[in-house]
Amino acid sequence: MYLYLIRHGIAIDPDPLTLDSIADDESRPLTKIGRKKIAQVADCLKQIHSHKGARLGLTFDLIITSPLIRAKQTADIFIDKQVSPKLEIAQDLKPMGNLPAWLMNWNARSDRNSISTLAIVGHEPNLSEWTELLLFGKVSHQLILKKGGMIGLKFPGNQIEIGTAQLYCLIPPKYLS
Amino acid sequence: MYLYLIRHGIAIDPDPLTLDSIADDESRPLTKIGRKKIAQVADCLKQIHSHKGARLGLTFDLIITSPLIRAKQTADIFIDKQVSPKLEIAQDLKPMGNLPAWLMNWNARSDRNSISTLAIVGHEPNLSEWTELLLFGKVSHQLILKKGGMIGLKFPGNQIEIGTAQLYCLIPPKYLS
Repeated sequence: MYLYLIRHGIAIDPDPLTLDSIADDESRPLTKIGRKKIAQVADCLKQIHSHKGARLGLTFDLIITSPLIRAKQTADIFIDKQVSPKLEIAQDLKPMGNLPAWLMNWNARSDRNSISTLAIVGHEPNLSEWTELLLFGKVSHQLILKKGGMIGLKFPGNQIEIGTAQLYCLIPPKYLS
Repeated sequence: MYLYLIRHGIAIDPDPLTLDSIADDESRPLTKIGRKKIAQVADCLKQIHSHKGARLGLTFDLIITSPLIRAKQTADIFIDKQVSPKLEIAQDLKPMGNLPAWLMNWNARSDRNSISTLAIVGHEPNLSEWTELLLFGKVSHQLILKKGGMIGLKFPGNQIEIGTAQLYCLIPPKYLS
């Protein structure tokens, strides 16, 4: 199966007077440019062609997002653009989220076999750290994932297990428009 | 500095009757579709825009290619498309090439400081193995690099040293058109 890890788009900066407020951070929305860029990314994924010119299009069977506003708004744009028919929210995808807990939930799902292309929308440094864990079993902070960027991992079966992935793509947002 | 590793485009298949002939393998040209796809990749790199719509364009100060026909033809298309002003050939970039030897030559060059964006055109599994070496100091075969695909590495200074890179991008060719 394929797992895509997508970082939310550009959001309004934290208010310096309330920088310590978790509630404030969780409710920061995307900026106008952030929304526009994510819409371009979604359009780009749907337009992908093979080297022979056949339209492939990348769509996801399911998107699971962090509940934070900037991530949820990013995922909503992908749903509006019909890049995926289905959206779920997972608390484990919040900043400082819990990958092992999320993996345990995922691998226990009864509908898992019907999903071969899954996307999660979340935050840094989580997403690049989780990518390194899924690839190599350890974190070394050697990956750069910009806002609106996307990582694609390929797994040999339909389980998502640490240390079993191959890196299929890591695409900065400027290449997705 | 940035180092981009580009895999040659789709070439004609080896002749099964002369499969053991190194000379035959070295002279395999790109197919018509292979040339077209690499031209699309070159055009795509020149068209890259920022999230604010400013035209950035990715160009290389220098391209160094494997001497094999399919790699040289790939590099020639980048030169024809003015993605780089300058092309060199390096024997160490051949299949089964020698990364440490190439690195020693590179880091000893007197003009190295004038080159902040370098591309090399070569072969698999070399390019993905070298990427893992430059990132992590060891090879684990977890990266997928298709023909016409591109990896981008960022180094903290202007030396290319094993174990010092960050992965900036890994882009399959279907995202570069």
